[in-house]
Amino acid sequence: MIERIAILGTGLLGTSVGLALRAAGFEGTIAGWNRSPEQAQLALKVGALSVVESDPLEAARGAQVTLLAVPIYATLDFMEKLSGVLGPEHLVTDVGSTKGQISEAAGRLFNSPDRAAFLPGHPMAGKERGGAELAEADLFRGAVWLFTDDPSCERSATGAALVKGWREWVAAMGAKTLDLEPARHDELVGWVSHLPQFVATALSAVLEDEVGDAPELKDVGGRGLREMTRLGASPYSMWRDIAHTNTEEIERALQVLEQRLAHIRENLRTPELRDEFERANEFRRGQ
Amino acid sequence: MIERIAILGTGLLGTSVGLALRAAGFEGTIAGWNRSPEQAQLALKVGALSVVESDPLEAARGAQVTLLAVPIYATLDFMEKLSGVLGPEHLVTDVGSTKGQISEAAGRLFNSPDRAAFLPGHPMAGKERGGAELAEADLFRGAVWLFTDDPSCERSATGAALVKGWREWVAAMGAKTLDLEPARHDELVGWVSHLPQFVATALSAVLEDEVGDAPELKDVGGRGLREMTRLGASPYSMWRDIAHTNTEEIERALQVLEQRLAHIRENLRTPELRDEFERANEFRRGQ
Repeated sequence: MIERIAILGTGLLGTSVGLALRAAGFEGTIAGWNRSPEQAQLALKVGALSVVESDPLEAARGAQVTLLAVPIYATLDFMEKLSGVLGPEHLVTDVGSTKGQISEAAGRLFNSPDRAAFLPGHPMAGKERGGAELAEADLFRGAVWLFTDDPSCERSATGAALVKGWREWVAAMGAKTLDLEPARHDELVGWVSHLPQFVATALSAVLEDEVGDAPELKDVGGRGLREMTRLGASPYSMWRDIAHTNTEEIERALQVLEQRLAHIRENLRTPELRDEFERANEFRRGQ
Repeated sequence: MIERIAILGTGLLGTSVGLALRAAGFEGTIAGWNRSPEQAQLALKVGALSVVESDPLEAARGAQVTLLAVPIYATLDFMEKLSGVLGPEHLVTDVGSTKGQISEAAGRLFNSPDRAAFLPGHPMAGKERGGAELAEADLFRGAVWLFTDDPSCERSATGAALVKGWREWVAAMGAKTLDLEPARHDELVGWVSHLPQFVATALSAVLEDEVGDAPELKDVGGRGLREMTRLGASPYSMWRDIAHTNTEEIERALQVLEQRLAHIRENLRTPELRDEFERANEFRRGQ
């Protein structure tokens, strides 16, 4: 039923969605737009798009489903603009990593019978670096694709059908869909996604200061060091909007971790250290 | 020239050394001892040993080279006992993760012309869990095997030749050898090995407390979460002696990291956050 999709933002996620849709058998049109046209041309070249558009709002007007695959503040900007130019025959969805502000805007600007539908989404997939050149058709295979939809919204019949259709395509891309309340989403990803990122950033920054110029370093670090610092390669541009839109959850998580590290530091020679290791072991057993 | 090796402690490292020696073409005798005899029998069964011994001191007396592959305090205990029963025709070496106390004991108890030789060693290889059942012949391939030898010690000619011979076998197992001063070793591994471990333990323990029983958790966590908590599975038994024998370096590293996390927490909405990400990116570029 969905035959025309627009992808606004053809970085790693947007381009991977195009590739994954094709791999899942989507035969309709995929129009793409990107702020820097080279990334859009690259997405076209690798087969993620049918056509590159120069005007994102026109691209969305020509599509049934528009996927916003841009940073969070750019997503919020597009939501403002698109709510004025799209109608009940359209669905807009996104891939933003925080969902509080986006879900609030969706309720305010979309999701009434005379307006376009909006389905807030968040695929738990990515890499420590972005860009169309790293896109993969299999990026979402086995990953969870979270939605923070408002089940009480009253959409047009077309809007409701497009939401159902998009969820089916997400499943066809190999992702497992899961629905959460927006606040619970932001709390949970604060712990399991944002906290690990900021820890990797802090650890990598500290190691750069302390041993970054040690000639033995490149040799000595093993798998553990590589894994614990891989996310240290993540760019600020990818995380700024997350830090700005989930600040309180991240602050709380960081503070709890700081206290835990201090507790471990003060107990390196006491039996309390055993409790910390056992608690950590417990988490891994549950994974 | 080395024809008889004793491995005291046939856990992950000891058993892997036996397998790696065989894979590298060692055709002599490998005698093994373990505190719990089942692990030694398992090491025998997988081909890491020629024979299981019931008395570790006798096993060492019957070998030219004795590898201590036990926790650090057990290594120090064995050093005391072995220095009394071995002579200049013997070499003892180890795999302990901290080298300050072991190197000090080596100078005090070994490495004179009338005593056995001791070569303090530390392969930068391992897993988050121990045990002979996880041993691999390839565990040391591509890894660095650190030595903190005292180049000024005056060994017997046999001792010096055994040191040279053991270094050659370590290289034949696929490891790259690197020599460091003991204090520099403990400082460097404090940053690149011990700090990442305690961070993974703290992060895993915090996550167990905060979201360990969240039903959505198993689904939502991705590769980043798995990598950042893998070392959380490491057992206390493996890390207690490290925490006890490298306490000051670990305390310092933890305190620096705590301050960095607090700095990030206080700057989630300021341009300072960019500097932290860029510093972290720098570390990864150097890796």
